[in-house]
Amino acid sequence: MIILHSFWLSLATYRVRIALNLKGVAFEERTHDLTQGHQNTAAFRAVNPAGAVPALEGATPEPLTQSLAILEWLEETHPTPALLPADAAGRAKVRAMFLITAADTHPLVVPRVRAQLKKRFGADDDAGVEWAAHWFREGLAAYEALLPDGATRCHGQTLSIADLALASHLIGAKRFNVSLDEYPRVAHVSASIMQIPEIAAAHPDLQIDAPQIQETVGTGPS
Amino acid sequence: MIILHSFWLSLATYRVRIALNLKGVAFEERTHDLTQGHQNTAAFRAVNPAGAVPALEGATPEPLTQSLAILEWLEETHPTPALLPADAAGRAKVRAMFLITAADTHPLVVPRVRAQLKKRFGADDDAGVEWAAHWFREGLAAYEALLPDGATRCHGQTLSIADLALASHLIGAKRFNVSLDEYPRVAHVSASIMQIPEIAAAHPDLQIDAPQIQETVGTGPS
Repeated sequence: MIILHSFWLSLATYRVRIALNLKGVAFEERTHDLTQGHQNTAAFRAVNPAGAVPALEGATPEPLTQSLAILEWLEETHPTPALLPADAAGRAKVRAMFLITAADTHPLVVPRVRAQLKKRFGADDDAGVEWAAHWFREGLAAYEALLPDGATRCHGQTLSIADLALASHLIGAKRFNVSLDEYPRVAHVSASIMQIPEIAAAHPDLQIDAPQIQETVGTGPS
Repeated sequence: MIILHSFWLSLATYRVRIALNLKGVAFEERTHDLTQGHQNTAAFRAVNPAGAVPALEGATPEPLTQSLAILEWLEETHPTPALLPADAAGRAKVRAMFLITAADTHPLVVPRVRAQLKKRFGADDDAGVEWAAHWFREGLAAYEALLPDGATRCHGQTLSIADLALASHLIGAKRFNVSLDEYPRVAHVSASIMQIPEIAAAHPDLQIDAPQIQETVGTGPS
């Protein structure tokens, strides 16, 4: 059995969970409460020395880490439905759009970074939220500049890993009270992709370790 | 002719320049002084709306952006020498190691982020340097945990995109005065890979837009 090491708030895990759903890969989740430091236990460090989720265990000799590396592995080993375009230039475009979130935005707002902002610069919770909101807005502007009018997917007509990244970006933006009003093309894609059953079912709020009553603004993402 | 839009200090461009060298792809560089805001000209924004280097123009209908997306495209279109392992699990490992730099480290230390630290938290140059050094040390620790004793490459015996990422990480670490003393396995890989002619020739300090007299500590990376 494939095990997805996860935490409900983790946007990177959410991207992988969507792909597993879409490709019909059977998996079990093992949750780790990152707010309680459970990523630092010896047992979890044996799975991923970096102490981060997601990690995908059981399919390869060593557990897989980093959402993009896991998604590329899934694409190679479970190619249907394809989440990358058939042409090399299209794949490059989709990967670049994925990295707007996974490199240019998400790493700037994870808890370990906001902890450093607090420690080094005395950034309080409000400042941490505004910091995160700033980078989500920057990412939304980058997507808006790349999307054609009327698009329902990030690239062409077919769902790709770029849409998975955008979905995670949208959840992060909402968590930090960023409105989509200034990003109408992003909002148009959002209205389409967030309804897809495999994406909707992967939502952080629906995971087994999510609190019953949501109070997540400013808490994440992880 | 393929054009690599670049800036000498850019570590992401450096990763791509190495791969072009290794694969023997003919290219010209077009340099943009990011310290003077040249990435914000209308001409460059037409190449990359995000205003970032590297961008690879002339090989595809639209310019390619994001170092990992460009490297994957190069691997697909110019497969020799391979910079990804032959097996899917190996490829996943190498991509994850690439992302230690390209996602977990580098996006945290680029000028736009340090500008925000200054604007929001009053971080002076020293604080910006120490911020960057912190994340380079974190990345070095992550590589050190993954490398076997005596390794001369990040994965197996063959150069891969993980080594390109590590090479850029090493240059960034040096720029911020981070010593390798605590990372002996990283230092061992470094001693081997940094001597490879195609890597040595790609070094930021040797590029045509690099200043004649180097005074780069705390200036970058871009």
